[in-house]
Formats: sequence, structure tokens, C-alpha cells
Amino acid sequence: MSRFFSARYADLTPYTPGEQPQNRRYIKLNTNESPFPPSPGVAAAVEAESRRLALYSDPECVKLREKMADVYGLDPDQIVMTNGSDEVLNFAFMAFADEEHPLAFADITYGFYPVFAQINRIPYTEIPLKSDFCLDPAASNGLNKTVVIATPNAPTGLALPLGDIERIVKSNPDNVVIVDEAYVDFGGESAVTLLDRYENLLVVGTFSKSRSMAGARLGFGFGSQKLIADLNTLRYSTNPYNINRLTDAAGQAALAENDYYMVNCRTIIENRAWTTEQLRSLGFRVLDSQTNFVFAESPDIAGRELYSKLKDAGILVRHFDKERLQNFNRITIGTKEQMQTLIDTIASITGGDKP
Amino acid sequence: MSRFFSARYADLTPYTPGEQPQNRRYIKLNTNESPFPPSPGVAAAVEAESRRLALYSDPECVKLREKMADVYGLDPDQIVMTNGSDEVLNFAFMAFADEEHPLAFADITYGFYPVFAQINRIPYTEIPLKSDFCLDPAASNGLNKTVVIATPNAPTGLALPLGDIERIVKSNPDNVVIVDEAYVDFGGESAVTLLDRYENLLVVGTFSKSRSMAGARLGFGFGSQKLIADLNTLRYSTNPYNINRLTDAAGQAALAENDYYMVNCRTIIENRAWTTEQLRSLGFRVLDSQTNFVFAESPDIAGRELYSKLKDAGILVRHFDKERLQNFNRITIGTKEQMQTLIDTIASITGGDKP
Repeated sequence: MSRFFSARYADLTPYTPGEQPQNRRYIKLNTNESPFPPSPGVAAAVEAESRRLALYSDPECVKLREKMADVYGLDPDQIVMTNGSDEVLNFAFMAFADEEHPLAFADITYGFYPVFAQINRIPYTEIPLKSDFCLDPAASNGLNKTVVIATPNAPTGLALPLGDIERIVKSNPDNVVIVDEAYVDFGGESAVTLLDRYENLLVVGTFSKSRSMAGARLGFGFGSQKLIADLNTLRYSTNPYNINRLTDAAGQAALAENDYYMVNCRTIIENRAWTTEQLRSLGFRVLDSQTNFVFAESPDIAGRELYSKLKDAGILVRHFDKERLQNFNRITIGTKEQMQTLIDTIASITGGDKP
Repeated sequence: MSRFFSARYADLTPYTPGEQPQNRRYIKLNTNESPFPPSPGVAAAVEAESRRLALYSDPECVKLREKMADVYGLDPDQIVMTNGSDEVLNFAFMAFADEEHPLAFADITYGFYPVFAQINRIPYTEIPLKSDFCLDPAASNGLNKTVVIATPNAPTGLALPLGDIERIVKSNPDNVVIVDEAYVDFGGESAVTLLDRYENLLVVGTFSKSRSMAGARLGFGFGSQKLIADLNTLRYSTNPYNINRLTDAAGQAALAENDYYMVNCRTIIENRAWTTEQLRSLGFRVLDSQTNFVFAESPDIAGRELYSKLKDAGILVRHFDKERLQNFNRITIGTKEQMQTLIDTIASITGGDKP
């Protein structure tokens, strides 16, 4: 830290992203990326747009929001597009939480929430997940706080039923409830259908997982026109041109080929079922995932050790050195071939017979 | 504003970007974009990278920073890359200014500075420019504040001599001096050469102007390793993957073809000299620009009226409805043909003979 760094941020602990090693080719199952490339139209759209880079992008993302509105059945004014969903989450924390509206989120969830709270100096409480890693909806009702729920949750993969989400939104009418649906396309139920009934609901999503575009950085928020206008006030006060032309064009092309991605999601769901079954037959405890990853622990090998041995064998998974999570690894669902290699490698590490 | 919007931001007045009309093709001289497309390698690099979009970008931008380090004669650890220079400016305001280190910047400069100050609740004072629109360096020495200087300045186009910059940095040793060099490649002297002597200097730049990549959103900050580490603490606490893969690839390709852009800058400088001469022969007062725009007022027609009549004629320029600036327009330097059309159109609007 330099001697000039503001005391406001002196205690800040930044988020640690999953490792992105450049030195070796791994089977990369550690950051929940898609194993499938973007749809064919994306490369063509991006290449054409690259000739127009001299001009600023459209700060209103008019065409992209119109296409989003079509796909999601919303009005374009209910949509804000952001530089990844981290950006809309940060804006939402800034806009809808403060000393008067403290935050509440699960003690085991996306690790960026406490960082966003810290950097914006917003008090927060953590709701302990039950022993089965499910959120106790009763513990989230009537909190009179700005509630943030990742559902399906990371790193557990577990989803909260839509009825439980609705009760949380309904019982908390004077605060915004932020529902982070980064993984919803892998079998979850979206809270988008609740938007016309609740003015205090913000739904957050991303093109990084189901739409194979983690590298393009495209996230979004859905809410009432007024909530979206508030987020735009912050966006226009920090970075009006937050979406670059190439990502804007890639997003539009992807939405025009949405079926391609939905087919890929079904393949991921099939590979997830197979991987879960294989891991269980190797003795693992595997939570019931509704995402593109599984969260699993072995009775035979510690989580950290399995992570290290897999890395040595050329397979990256994500290990969290945190209480209750230490014995687990979060494993992204890749192609069938990648999953076969994973299972074979785990079997040889744990000394179990190949299933 | 929704009833949920935090009182912290209730009084915020967002920045207003220059208009980006979608309804009609204009000669666009209003947002200081380059009239030249990106260099040939950019499209190829972007198209190749579009096939790798499923994977997250490198949060450290290792390759891009190495190429930047080569071009600018710095160490990669002295460089941070951001989603446009607005992002690095916002991080710098957050990192290096607060109640204990209030801000100071000119009363006429980039209109985003007061917005960044407001959103981060940092007190600021405005240093009045002299009647010739120059910054009085004496009024900026020994301020004991976090000083922000755009040089060459917008919308005036005037540059501060490097010796004056150095005195400001030297006389303000307990605060960071942020030198915003968005327009430095059009004839200015960069403060980069001062970096090895002053630990309190942060230099900010962008690919939006001289490198024809406004639509790619690529900005950067140069400073001591410690200052850059502070900015990275904030970056990793808000948006670690702030640079998408396509922009990263475009930036690397552009740096490999840097000569192309430097030739374009010389063309802009020639067109600027020609445009300045033509406007002066039409009776305009034109400030001595070191940028890719000129700031000019006519004795014959009010600034707002000229802006409107040019817009009717299909030419967009930028008018600022602010005291001392109202009679001026800021006119981006385009191609020679565009400038010829501008001059002809102004001559017919003001009734003057074509020069």
C-alpha cells in the first residue's frame, strides 16, 4: 500500500478470482466457464464491428436491450447491461444498501458479496446456511434488510424454490431483494416472472456461463423502470460507455442464436447427471446441483489434497479454504470427454476402481 | 428515482456524454473520435479472439501490459489497464482523495471530475482558469490537495508546459497529482518522463483518441508500483475481469502497429492547423489546440446557434451551456474532406465568403 492510499480502503480485502494459469494447458474446471465456443454468428459480428471501433459505443445499448427484451419478455427500460454481472452487483449494492438499509446474504455464497459491502462501507449480516447447505427461507423473511440471494447458489449449486424467493421479496417490502441468477439456465426457475408483481425485486444475470461468453464481460440487471433508472444514475456517474462495441455486437449475435446455447445447457445438464452419478459411485457426497458445476467431497481424501493431485494431473478445480467448505471441491461441468478424464483421474488418485 | 435509492446518491448529477444520434448519418465532430479506422491487425486479432470467448479474460492483462511497457519504457508493474480511462480516473479519485485529501481541479476541464468527486463524496475546489483559459500554475502549487490536471485540457485544447506540471507535482509531495493525458499524442509533452522521480504522480491515458479505439474502451494508468497496486486493490474489489478478451486482443494488435497511429496523429495535427487558419480567416477566435479538436467562437453568431445550424446541416459539434464557454463550440478534427465541408458550411451559415 502506498502512503497516499485513502484510509477509507486500507482494510479492504479484494476478491480472489479462480486461478488462470498461463504456463500450462489444463482441463479447466475451476471457474465455471462453458466448454462450448460461442455460436457461429458471434465471430462474424465481432469482426464486422471491429472496423467501427473508432466510434464510441452506444451508452444506452438500445439494440442490445431490445433483443434482450424480446428474449426475456420485458420492456427495454427494465434492463441495464453491464461489464459483467459484477458491475451490476456493485451498482445494486451502492444504489440499494447503506447504513439505513444494511445487507443480508448467506454465509456461504458468492465470495464477492462481502467485498462489495466492504468497499461501499455497507453493514452486512450473514445468514448461516443449514447443515445441508440450503438457505432457511424463514431466516430470510421479514428481515427489513437489502437481501442478496444467489440462486442457484455458488459454490453449492443448490437452488431455492421460486415460492421461497417470492416470500422473501414479499416479506421485505421496504428493501430491494437482489436475486443473482448467474446459473439459472442450467435447470433453475427464474424470478423474472415475479417482476411485474414486485417493485422491490432486482434480477441479475450474465452471459458468462450458459452463453459461453465469460471473456466478453456481459452482465445484466432486470427490475422495475425506476430501479433500472437508479442503476443508470450510478452508471452515468462512473462509466457511461461501460459496454464496448465488440461485446455489444457479440451479445446481439448470441441472442439471435439463443437456441444454440439452450441446447448446450441441456448437454451440460446431462453431463452433470452423469458426473454426479460417477462421483457418488466413487463414494463422494455430491450436492444436488442446478448449475454448471458440482460441489463434492470424498470420504477418502481431503479437499485440498484432491485439488492438488488433480492439478498435478492437469485438471484444475476450485477449492475454497473456508470452514465447512474445506473438504469439498467445486468442479465445473465440461464436455463428456473432460468429465470422463476427471472421473478416471479421481479414481486413480483415490485408488478406487474406475466406475 | 425509486423509493429504494440510497440517500447517499440522491443529489448526484450524472455526467452527460456527447450525443450519439442513431437516426441520421452526421459528420460527427462532437466526441473527439478519430476519423481513421483501427490498424489492419486489429480486426484479425479480434476475430481470432472471438473463438476463445468462453474463457474468462486474463485479470492481470499480462501480455497487454508487457507490450505497453515496451512502448512507453516502463515496467509492467507500473501499469494498470482499465475499461476506458473513466474507470482508472474513478479508481484514482477513490484511492487517493478523501476528506483528508480533498480534490482540486480547474473550473473548466473534463466535466466528469466533479461527478467522480460527488459519487465518492470527496470535497473539491475548482481552480479558476485565467481569462485566456490557461491554468495559472502558481494557483496550483503547494495546494496540499489531490490535484487533477487534464493536459492538454478539454474543451480548451490548451496544454500546460511540462515544467509547470513538474512544479505542481514537486510542491505537493503529500498528495497524488493525477495528470490526465487523453489528448497527449497530438503534440503534447507527456509527464511519463517524470515518473522515475516522483512517487506521487499518476499519469492517465486512453486508446480512444489517438489509437482509434473509443469503441473498444481501453484506458490505462501509469505510476509507481505502489500507486498501481493501490488501484489494483480497488479493481479487484469491484471488477477483476474489467478488460474483456476482445479489447485486450485489439489493444495488443494496435500496439504492434503503433506507427500507423502516430502517422494518423500527424495528419490530424496538419488538419488542425488548416482548420484553425480557415476559422480564423472567417473571423473566429480559436484557442491554440494541442489536441484532436479546436475550441472556437465567432464574433458573428452565438455558440448555441452555430451548433444548431451545423446540426441541421448534418454536422455535429459539441456545445457546452456553461458560463465563459457558451459562445464556443468544440470541434473534433476529422479528415481533410470533413474539415473542408465544415468550413464551407460555417461560411454559408455566417454569410462570410468561403475562405
